[in-house]
Amino acid sequence: MKELLRAGPGFQLSGVDTGATPGFTGDKKDGQKTLADGADDLADLQEQLFATGKFGGTRSVLLVLQAMDTAGKGGIVKHVVGSVDPQGVHIHAFKAPTDEEKAHDFLWRVRRELPVAGQLGVFDRSHYEDVLIHRVRGFSPPDVIEQRYGIIVDFERELAAAGTALVKVMLHISPEEQKQRLSDRLDDPAKHWKYNPGDLEERALWPAYMEAYQLAIERTSTDEAPWYVVPADHKWYARLAVQHLLVDALRGLGMEWPKADYDVEAEKKRLAESVIA
Amino acid sequence: MKELLRAGPGFQLSGVDTGATPGFTGDKKDGQKTLADGADDLADLQEQLFATGKFGGTRSVLLVLQAMDTAGKGGIVKHVVGSVDPQGVHIHAFKAPTDEEKAHDFLWRVRRELPVAGQLGVFDRSHYEDVLIHRVRGFSPPDVIEQRYGIIVDFERELAAAGTALVKVMLHISPEEQKQRLSDRLDDPAKHWKYNPGDLEERALWPAYMEAYQLAIERTSTDEAPWYVVPADHKWYARLAVQHLLVDALRGLGMEWPKADYDVEAEKKRLAESVIA
Repeated sequence: MKELLRAGPGFQLSGVDTGATPGFTGDKKDGQKTLADGADDLADLQEQLFATGKFGGTRSVLLVLQAMDTAGKGGIVKHVVGSVDPQGVHIHAFKAPTDEEKAHDFLWRVRRELPVAGQLGVFDRSHYEDVLIHRVRGFSPPDVIEQRYGIIVDFERELAAAGTALVKVMLHISPEEQKQRLSDRLDDPAKHWKYNPGDLEERALWPAYMEAYQLAIERTSTDEAPWYVVPADHKWYARLAVQHLLVDALRGLGMEWPKADYDVEAEKKRLAESVIA
Repeated sequence: MKELLRAGPGFQLSGVDTGATPGFTGDKKDGQKTLADGADDLADLQEQLFATGKFGGTRSVLLVLQAMDTAGKGGIVKHVVGSVDPQGVHIHAFKAPTDEEKAHDFLWRVRRELPVAGQLGVFDRSHYEDVLIHRVRGFSPPDVIEQRYGIIVDFERELAAAGTALVKVMLHISPEEQKQRLSDRLDDPAKHWKYNPGDLEERALWPAYMEAYQLAIERTSTDEAPWYVVPADHKWYARLAVQHLLVDALRGLGMEWPKADYDVEAEKKRLAESVIA
């Protein structure tokens, strides 16, 4: 599945079928079962990462999620990341930058939210906003954006060298699927809070966003930090795919349980003798 | 269940049966089923809290967990808090204070980790360490600790007035149950990292800790921020009980879904007309 989703040389976003389920032949029910089964694997691996972090390990995992509105970032956090122990997870949703954030380099606020050793970090949006919405909306001039691709590649290379396994995911839906999901939000009073009239202004810029994603992906999909483009019209498939990518990244760390730094047999004896009145 | 667990006037910790299941007559299997059923309620209420926070709501919930080692704080975080959307949760584990933290008032580091409006905050240990381990180990003189009870009551009253519903829980196990759980950790190489020889030094101070808990609870269990002492020899019961307390606290907020601040019918029309080439 991983290799089918990876944006390698010559990648074309326009060629991706948002309704496909690359590497998985089952239907929704099979997919949900596979997701449920995989939750334990993911939770076990995450616990092991957490444990190594407590004992001097330097590894961490960072899931970067980018997508058009309604593509399912929130569902990934809830249903995939949500299956692991929340103690070991650091989630940050990047919003429009504050005045303080704007007064710094664009990576400043990003560095502050990086996972520490042992953590699974999740970026709900990220530094890629600075080459996506910034390009589409003209928030930064073209030469600055051009420069940022290189800065991002260097930044991510630095993270990888320091022990962070990056999993960069674009959840990719069709504009028709987005229309359906926005319509669902408008039809359900319990979902009205998730809708914002500004969503339609962003939606109108769809082609420009696809162009910005294409460019961002081709400029920053590296060996150290590849992009995965996950077809997301089927929510169940997108969740399964991201779970798979996370499990793969965690397995790739080649972790072992930390060895006891005390004499286990001696401690058993001490414990046996420890009687509380 | 709530009233049975609440530490009211005349509360005596020594009278609590750590193996009991107050307010629940079923067995482990029933308890696990009730926990699984309750997970959806908790997740729905937490989503509503999150939604109100996005629309000017000022309410939040703070779960404070205190316990002797192995009592199951981690299990509560994983199996109870873990059933809600991690986006709306802020968990902080308080460790031995850093030099910077020590240079401030004891509530300084606590205030920095308070939940914002809409969040479910979880304190794994808390400002109560400053009247528990500090009392038992003599890290602070008696008059300072005496003063802190009053400071804590005022602090928690301030939080309650600002909109935070506090749920303060002591997970209460027997020393025999702790011995069994420490023994399990020593028997399983995948759990060796969870054991620390220092755990036995803390364990030896059990009676002094119980005295410190008794005092802390009787001095700080107020109408605004009551303590709940949850028998925790049965992990399944403790999880069920904390889930129940959280659901109750969330229901007590009397929330409604935020109303649309836009014209829903007009937006449906705009959306219908929004076709992407």
